[in-house]
Amino acid sequence: MQRRKFLRTAGIGGGAAVVASTVAAPAIAQSMPELKWRLASSFPKSLDTLYGAGENFTKFIGEMTDNKFQVRIFASGEIVPGLQVLDAVQNGTVEMGHSAGTYYIGKDPTLAFDTTLPFGMNARQQEAWMNWGGGKELLGEVYKDYNTISIPCGNTGAQMGGWFRKEIKTPEDMKGLKFRIAGIAGMVCAKLGSVPQQIAGGDIYPALEKGTIDAAEWVGPYDDQKLGFNKIAPYYYYPGWWEGGPQTSAYINLQKWNELPKGYQSVIQSAAARAQAIMLSKYDAENPKALRELMAAGTKLLPFPQSVMEAAFNASNELYAEISAKNPKFKKVYENWKPFRNEEILWFRVAEFTFDSFMARQSAANKLG
Amino acid sequence: MQRRKFLRTAGIGGGAAVVASTVAAPAIAQSMPELKWRLASSFPKSLDTLYGAGENFTKFIGEMTDNKFQVRIFASGEIVPGLQVLDAVQNGTVEMGHSAGTYYIGKDPTLAFDTTLPFGMNARQQEAWMNWGGGKELLGEVYKDYNTISIPCGNTGAQMGGWFRKEIKTPEDMKGLKFRIAGIAGMVCAKLGSVPQQIAGGDIYPALEKGTIDAAEWVGPYDDQKLGFNKIAPYYYYPGWWEGGPQTSAYINLQKWNELPKGYQSVIQSAAARAQAIMLSKYDAENPKALRELMAAGTKLLPFPQSVMEAAFNASNELYAEISAKNPKFKKVYENWKPFRNEEILWFRVAEFTFDSFMARQSAANKLG
Repeated sequence: MQRRKFLRTAGIGGGAAVVASTVAAPAIAQSMPELKWRLASSFPKSLDTLYGAGENFTKFIGEMTDNKFQVRIFASGEIVPGLQVLDAVQNGTVEMGHSAGTYYIGKDPTLAFDTTLPFGMNARQQEAWMNWGGGKELLGEVYKDYNTISIPCGNTGAQMGGWFRKEIKTPEDMKGLKFRIAGIAGMVCAKLGSVPQQIAGGDIYPALEKGTIDAAEWVGPYDDQKLGFNKIAPYYYYPGWWEGGPQTSAYINLQKWNELPKGYQSVIQSAAARAQAIMLSKYDAENPKALRELMAAGTKLLPFPQSVMEAAFNASNELYAEISAKNPKFKKVYENWKPFRNEEILWFRVAEFTFDSFMARQSAANKLG
Repeated sequence: MQRRKFLRTAGIGGGAAVVASTVAAPAIAQSMPELKWRLASSFPKSLDTLYGAGENFTKFIGEMTDNKFQVRIFASGEIVPGLQVLDAVQNGTVEMGHSAGTYYIGKDPTLAFDTTLPFGMNARQQEAWMNWGGGKELLGEVYKDYNTISIPCGNTGAQMGGWFRKEIKTPEDMKGLKFRIAGIAGMVCAKLGSVPQQIAGGDIYPALEKGTIDAAEWVGPYDDQKLGFNKIAPYYYYPGWWEGGPQTSAYINLQKWNELPKGYQSVIQSAAARAQAIMLSKYDAENPKALRELMAAGTKLLPFPQSVMEAAFNASNELYAEISAKNPKFKKVYENWKPFRNEEILWFRVAEFTFDSFMARQSAANKLG
């Protein structure tokens, strides 16, 4: 089947060469072969913004190719468990996935750079790193070992710090805290003395209600509201210092990608970029209303104390040094990512943050209404 | 010609219906007609990031359609003067443009909402407003009068405040200042007592050198450095409070747009989204180095004093009330835009700004290097 697909698309090189010329190409059927692919999403349909990015991605691919290139999306668990999407793409069980690198740090923590790391870059800075800072090339090497190409396809923006049953006043309060938090953020929390818990979305509510866990992080107001955490935990902390600009990714099986005509590769990249913009802007548009409603229903909104943020920042740096010492791939990406982050934040402190800060002050003074 | 094109694409309705079905469409030549269009850019090639967004936009359209839909880009002045792109699209002189609504406030100041206004939204907030807040629909009505559809295609991020020959310490210092600043920002500066000047890019340097003007704003470090303003004005102010997230736009003649197959319309939208992401991330990636170099060469980086920002903010609100009083279109958009901005900034103050602020503090404490 794969061999036949290869043969069917093997004549595409000529088509691609025509693309580069300035003369209109004659209509060659092979330049737009009929393909029916499947995409496994790591997200449930209930997370309509995250799942929606995959849905839009596949929809745009169909639209742009007159439905010659059809990709059918399957929600988490429908054909592939949500956290095994990379495996399924690697093995060719599905041609495509929509997922997040950070779900696969058990394979290699380096994959987290494709999403974000605690105290990483914000959404715009992450995109700058991916497009212009070397991120795309470095992560391309890493994903190659998993027979996959990863293309940015979504970002949530800075997330919230989650729902807590008791107040967090000092780093001491993090000690012994049974906190539903996954991945590298969980490893940082462990350094602070917390007991990180990995619990699937649907199981968080009862665990938090019963007191099996003391706190749980999810996404932000729009998604959190749906799960009703506000009914069982009074304190809603911010910011989610472990997810300042987490990116989600479209995965494509590397052989399948290489067999595609250049035109379809371009369609995929543009569809992903458009789906990303729609997803991030939807969170930015929907979160304010959800947060208002949560607060009207009694949620107490609190910032993490600076001392807790500082302790988490130091623990993160320690962790990155430890991982770098034993993982040369992680070290290689980290040593590119870290100075890029530094430069980005230096620059953002100038025009972007001072503009945003002034507007925030006007907001605090009720001058924007 | 237009009639013939219409006839050629009139059979497309059927193709579009097939797109909506789940069965692969048979290869219908008309669903991907061969088109050769022209795009007039408002930007010179020397502004490689701004001009580049139009260039990428046209490149992606070609790539995705196997070069069946070819759009040739022309730089500012090549076939259309830079500030007459909307007219050229309206008249059908060119099918497409890459420009900014704010250039056409002489026709209607409402068009500025398609770019940004002084103390407007940042790049992400503007995108949220366009996609989910009603911006697209409201601006669609406005552009309809100009026989044009406008699609977001680029953003510079927050710009700098420009180059000044003398320090600005109080709002008094803005009085009498001959300041190269255009559009609505110029009207705000006039309220502060400045004398706004409209000077084309290439003529700014000699005017500032001779002292014909006292100050000039352009874009940000990456573009400003090329024009060499640092050699003739020592003070580089931030932020550009009049351009916190200015969006550039792809224009398409409305008849031509309506004649397009749905697939090509989708191609255009995705190409624009991808070009936008690439443009914004390029500025974010290139500005830090340029700013470092400017500062190494002696530029004095200064924030606008809070009192000047406050005076400009108040003058902006006054101006918007005045325009609203006599322009019902402006009023209609403003009354949607203003509460959306308020909600966005309220929300951004929570997760996004506190994350960014913490990282900015770490940067200031030299803890990111």
